[in-house]
Amino acid sequence: MNTTNTDAPTTDTSEPLVIREDSKDASGVVTLTLNRPKQFNALSVDMLSAMQAELDSIAQDSSIRVVVIAANGKAFCAGHNLKEMRAHSDEAFHSALFKQCSQMMLTINQMPQVVIAKVQGIATAAGCQLVAACDLAVASNDAKFATSGINVGLFCSTPAVAVSRNLSRKQAFEMLITGEFIDANTALQQGLINRVAPADQLDGTLQSLTDAITAKSSVAVKTGKDMFYKQLDMDLADAYEYAGKVMTCNMMADDVTEGIDAFIEKRHAVWTGR
Amino acid sequence: MNTTNTDAPTTDTSEPLVIREDSKDASGVVTLTLNRPKQFNALSVDMLSAMQAELDSIAQDSSIRVVVIAANGKAFCAGHNLKEMRAHSDEAFHSALFKQCSQMMLTINQMPQVVIAKVQGIATAAGCQLVAACDLAVASNDAKFATSGINVGLFCSTPAVAVSRNLSRKQAFEMLITGEFIDANTALQQGLINRVAPADQLDGTLQSLTDAITAKSSVAVKTGKDMFYKQLDMDLADAYEYAGKVMTCNMMADDVTEGIDAFIEKRHAVWTGR
Amino acid sequence: MNTTNTDAPTTDTSEPLVIREDSKDASGVVTLTLNRPKQFNALSVDMLSAMQAELDSIAQDSSIRVVVIAANGKAFCAGHNLKEMRAHSDEAFHSALFKQCSQMMLTINQMPQVVIAKVQGIATAAGCQLVAACDLAVASNDAKFATSGINVGLFCSTPAVAVSRNLSRKQAFEMLITGEFIDANTALQQGLINRVAPADQLDGTLQSLTDAITAKSSVAVKTGKDMFYKQLDMDLADAYEYAGKVMTCNMMADDVTEGIDAFIEKRHAVWTGR
Repeated sequence: MNTTNTDAPTTDTSEPLVIREDSKDASGVVTLTLNRPKQFNALSVDMLSAMQAELDSIAQDSSIRVVVIAANGKAFCAGHNLKEMRAHSDEAFHSALFKQCSQMMLTINQMPQVVIAKVQGIATAAGCQLVAACDLAVASNDAKFATSGINVGLFCSTPAVAVSRNLSRKQAFEMLITGEFIDANTALQQGLINRVAPADQLDGTLQSLTDAITAKSSVAVKTGKDMFYKQLDMDLADAYEYAGKVMTCNMMADDVTEGIDAFIEKRHAVWTGR
Repeated sequence: MNTTNTDAPTTDTSEPLVIREDSKDASGVVTLTLNRPKQFNALSVDMLSAMQAELDSIAQDSSIRVVVIAANGKAFCAGHNLKEMRAHSDEAFHSALFKQCSQMMLTINQMPQVVIAKVQGIATAAGCQLVAACDLAVASNDAKFATSGINVGLFCSTPAVAVSRNLSRKQAFEMLITGEFIDANTALQQGLINRVAPADQLDGTLQSLTDAITAKSSVAVKTGKDMFYKQLDMDLADAYEYAGKVMTCNMMADDVTEGIDAFIEKRHAVWTGR
Repeated sequence: MNTTNTDAPTTDTSEPLVIREDSKDASGVVTLTLNRPKQFNALSVDMLSAMQAELDSIAQDSSIRVVVIAANGKAFCAGHNLKEMRAHSDEAFHSALFKQCSQMMLTINQMPQVVIAKVQGIATAAGCQLVAACDLAVASNDAKFATSGINVGLFCSTPAVAVSRNLSRKQAFEMLITGEFIDANTALQQGLINRVAPADQLDGTLQSLTDAITAKSSVAVKTGKDMFYKQLDMDLADAYEYAGKVMTCNMMADDVTEGIDAFIEKRHAVWTGR
């Protein structure tokens, strides 16, 4: 968690909280970079607002296919801003803060684009939750992860929601109750992230993943992400019934006709997104 | 996915779609072998019908204890038959196809016998789902798995139901959204399959598993499979209450009396299945 | 499972069924040691009653932070007492037995203290369930785990509830349907336990875990354990809403104010548990 005084003269408040960078080609990849390195990219009220605004805007833009959440500095994200939290003693402030934070996490889950965390340093508390809440995650092999709220007396309850839906039960509980770090390889093995790479190869690892996704039909990706999470909360028979309806609808898309024809003719498909 | 023209002169339509082979001893193991190797054992309407008929028949036969789903040729199963799908533009056809396919997967889940996939080659799309839908799975170490529908614009929605109930969330989503293959050892580690063996030792690996199951009381196996899946969709307290009732009922079986006596007397139990 | 005649002259009935040992320092760690080594610490009616009484008492005692469930002898726990079960043919006895056992498992889940299994030998059937039901588990590297009821015709239905909430689906089903042992490293990899150590280092491994927990604020630990399990049975949006409320409430605790101040001032927090 971040404890750097945000009012210090060395603050970087003239810099944008979040830097948005659109891919120069037409691939539709947007990178959102958390840009408060001196504050370990803490999820202050302002940072959450900036991220929410970017995500809401992207969610409406069908030309965007993949969102990468990255960070500047030595830390990926150290969770909530403890000094900001400590400055407020009223319950209403904290209730609103956790709601705002959960809303951002749910937006990642519900937006049509695939969201990938690119973790280059520590990810703690709500920062670890941010990794867990993304659809996919890559990390450099010196990245570390912890749900460390318990160290200051505040159990990572909202992070627990995301982390316990990535890791198995005992492994998630160990992280949450001990507050101890796990390294990138452990995170990979336990299901928190998808790929690990040396720091100087992280961009390439990420790109192989974004390339794989942007090469696909947008209608298939959008349909798939939405149905994937919805069916997880259903029982088996309901999930199959729902999935069959979604797949029938997906089958009617022009892109599937084109996709099958291209496959049979051994050529690349030309997607229209319809 | 299969794109071989099923009307070609080299077609093997004189061969049965599915070959049923009953174990020669009284062990009660039936092997169903997908037998359209040139079509990569695609799950065409006819193949699904053939499998459904076999499974329905087996489900009624209490002398059968274990079903092995195997395949002839280089592929285990390449999912739906893309040419057949492409030949139909009406929604009703596809809706019926996905219902038929989901019904077969649910039958595997609901029938009293233990169903084991024996995977000797690629298992893609609904073929990967078939592996996931089985109770257990073994694979040769050169087997490969992918949910590749996304490559032709058709997200593997019904496969997602089965795959996401085997793998952790991020690993399942990666397979579904990238369409990329995972190898047998990755599939083992991620929970999609139970055992991996060199191709020439796959039969032995499978047999050690079928032997372990056929040595058990049929009433215990049948009771166990049914309760296992039902309790997964309940919350903890409900699951315990349900499990306690099932176990009490199981305790009243003659086989348990015999099983405990045999254990105490250090002899093999003689099961009656009652 | 235990088959030693509990009426034999060598019986150790003069010994307490469960030995309670409170940590000599003020750390609040209680060790409950199953103490029927000759009966492989079977969960007889009397053993379950003794454990329930200890757990109920501890649950009311806010000075206790962590409960370790350990065992004397070569086995950790061999599940139910088969001779006792065999001596009763009435359904009512067995129904009551499984209810009693499930109640003990649910108590572990619902009590405010963190409960850790310390496994030094075999853990089978309800003994394996006991490991699965604990919040955390450590094991010596020669420990072994099986849900072996199926070997005597009695599918481990109540153990299945706990085991299937620790392991992935196919791995849990394999254990339950084959009755075969998995070793400690496999149990670690599959999520049944948290840490493995050589037998002579098991105490140290356990202590590092109990130290980590007892160093935390009791209000955070209590809040966290309760919310962790409750949110697992909710869908994502409900879980976030619930977690936000819990975290807001936790934020109002004196311990959080102290925890954040201590963190900022780079000193150890002094918890009051309020």
